[in-house]
Amino acid sequence: MAEELGFSKGLAGVVADATSVSQVQGEVGRLIYRGISIEEIAEKSTFEEMTYFLLRGKMPTQPELNKVTAELKEFRALPKTVEAVIDAAPKTAHPMMVLQAAMAALAWDEAPVNLKDVDGNVRNAVRLTAQLGTAVARISRRRRGLAPVEPRTDLSHAENFLYMLDGKVPSKDVARMFDVALMLHMDHDFNASTFSARVIASTEARLTASVSGAVGALSGPLHGGANEKVLEMADKIGAPEKAKDWVANALATKAKVMGFGHRVYRTMDPRAKVLRGMLEQLVAQTGDKSTYETLRIVHDTMIDELGKTSKDYIWPNVDFWSGALYRLMKIETIDFTPIFAVARVVGWSSHIIEMWQDNRIYRPAAKYVGPTEATISPIASRG
Amino acid sequence: MAEELGFSKGLAGVVADATSVSQVQGEVGRLIYRGISIEEIAEKSTFEEMTYFLLRGKMPTQPELNKVTAELKEFRALPKTVEAVIDAAPKTAHPMMVLQAAMAALAWDEAPVNLKDVDGNVRNAVRLTAQLGTAVARISRRRRGLAPVEPRTDLSHAENFLYMLDGKVPSKDVARMFDVALMLHMDHDFNASTFSARVIASTEARLTASVSGAVGALSGPLHGGANEKVLEMADKIGAPEKAKDWVANALATKAKVMGFGHRVYRTMDPRAKVLRGMLEQLVAQTGDKSTYETLRIVHDTMIDELGKTSKDYIWPNVDFWSGALYRLMKIETIDFTPIFAVARVVGWSSHIIEMWQDNRIYRPAAKYVGPTEATISPIASRG
Repeated sequence: MAEELGFSKGLAGVVADATSVSQVQGEVGRLIYRGISIEEIAEKSTFEEMTYFLLRGKMPTQPELNKVTAELKEFRALPKTVEAVIDAAPKTAHPMMVLQAAMAALAWDEAPVNLKDVDGNVRNAVRLTAQLGTAVARISRRRRGLAPVEPRTDLSHAENFLYMLDGKVPSKDVARMFDVALMLHMDHDFNASTFSARVIASTEARLTASVSGAVGALSGPLHGGANEKVLEMADKIGAPEKAKDWVANALATKAKVMGFGHRVYRTMDPRAKVLRGMLEQLVAQTGDKSTYETLRIVHDTMIDELGKTSKDYIWPNVDFWSGALYRLMKIETIDFTPIFAVARVVGWSSHIIEMWQDNRIYRPAAKYVGPTEATISPIASRG
Repeated sequence: MAEELGFSKGLAGVVADATSVSQVQGEVGRLIYRGISIEEIAEKSTFEEMTYFLLRGKMPTQPELNKVTAELKEFRALPKTVEAVIDAAPKTAHPMMVLQAAMAALAWDEAPVNLKDVDGNVRNAVRLTAQLGTAVARISRRRRGLAPVEPRTDLSHAENFLYMLDGKVPSKDVARMFDVALMLHMDHDFNASTFSARVIASTEARLTASVSGAVGALSGPLHGGANEKVLEMADKIGAPEKAKDWVANALATKAKVMGFGHRVYRTMDPRAKVLRGMLEQLVAQTGDKSTYETLRIVHDTMIDELGKTSKDYIWPNVDFWSGALYRLMKIETIDFTPIFAVARVVGWSSHIIEMWQDNRIYRPAAKYVGPTEATISPIASRG
């Protein structure tokens, strides 16, 4: 229908703006943040360094890295108002809905936007990044009936987040894996939540108000939540030895196999490779291999079966392995999408700050397809 | 820069989707809701009828109108959780930021989206429309240090809103004018907040989560807030007899005259005409003509002066007269944009429900303009 009407539904293929924050090279399975491949970032960088790099557009010197690291620590505590908003939510509320409200409340003490104050906007983004993590941990513990754990300032962002979630400081290995997982999810060009953040911020709405809207977009099942569904699938399969038949049956009945395919990638999502490597390392350390084995057999069967007939859409995406990794870190499934936000907030903020350098409100055209000459008929005559 | 790069900045002129909710015919100064001109709507319809019409796509029969009117009344009370969120805000918080959080909190007890359940989605939109008004009134009274006024179910939506704001039932004339003002603001095709609502909802995020994001977009000074600025201008001018010189000086120094020009209209905004008529009626009734006279002289001087050199952008937009009208209704300037949301929520919801009939996630392409082959250099070597 859309093609007949002369436009591209969902703006697929339509260039909405220029960016230098990240690029998804879907044909070759490459993802770069400001030119650096995601594999190199996963190997050599940290959440703190990438926060600076994405927000500022240059890699930090040691003093700059020290400063952003200190700020990420200082800003961790939530304002009492935001705590009150989180604590007003019923335990049954979806954590993404609570997070969206908490982020809107975080805008309560934010100054109106000054587009040209890049330093102030970056500082605000660092505050927001620090506090979003604290909000996610508080929301999770509240849902689980646990008292909040106050943030510590002697831990890295990744360590402190897991500490606030669990009450225990994670091992160095787990903290590093989580740090890498966050970096992998920081940005992905114009995905729907980032595009939402840009559209809202193009009105010169406050940074945090725009991020609140992006959290709303990420809450949608077509965007966030896919790694939850992969785990639900693994749980439904039940055991590794059942996986091969399950996939064969799913393919025969055209049921959806979760965690495969992506609108942009035409080959392996590079993030999936990194996540699989970390997952295998953690499986070896913990000896808990049930979910991993099920997923591995789903994966291999999919590649085998689909490879017989097609070269398209047969590769796992970022969501295929991440849920199993988080589960081994004792994170509950419902917290996976909020954790996506803990990482993506850096990308959202970087896009907004970049856009504000040359801002124009998003105001697309509409193709009107309704009647053009109607009138109000007397109510008694209506059918 | 954007044109050189081969795309349209702000998606100007780019068709983002089809809609039959409303059409802005900018060249001829016509606005239609599903085919009916805004002038006819202002003359003959009501907020309740238009809520049904925009959400459902057909004019209601008497039983259908009775039902939506009853629902708009029944749903007026806010959940205690949402009241708690509003009451957590400091009185200094901007009311749009409090409203954004309140709307996100309203999604706490909302079920996940079922795209095909149009009846359920419309009912939810009616609830949201009823409760957004109550939230705006509560936020306003709290800011002014006043206790909230509980909604009444024997009043129309417009009457009840003014009653909740002021504590007194308005005159029939004022209630009707406010009802018309709300209808004028209900929809305007793909303005930035409606587009934000669509982008967020395209992920199948909940209706209220999407509307919360739209409130964020409307909070931006490039979108909502223009009628506030018109009144600030009038107050700065100070008196009608100073208006002519003020405009001449503004034009000579290229200072911005608020309330003129629009990205879409190339002639008179039809809503401005209706608003001016109501304003003149209320000025005659109240005898308070100071702001009106100042604006009238600004208006006439602008038309005269700009008409000498150009035919473009010389007409007042919807924001030029609405602020003066609201001021005569004793509404504070800072509440104008939240009142815009009281009306526009119907348009936001109508667009979302329409879009969900044939949904595809918004995922535009990006023009990458950053480096493509960077590496991580040792930190000591960075400049």
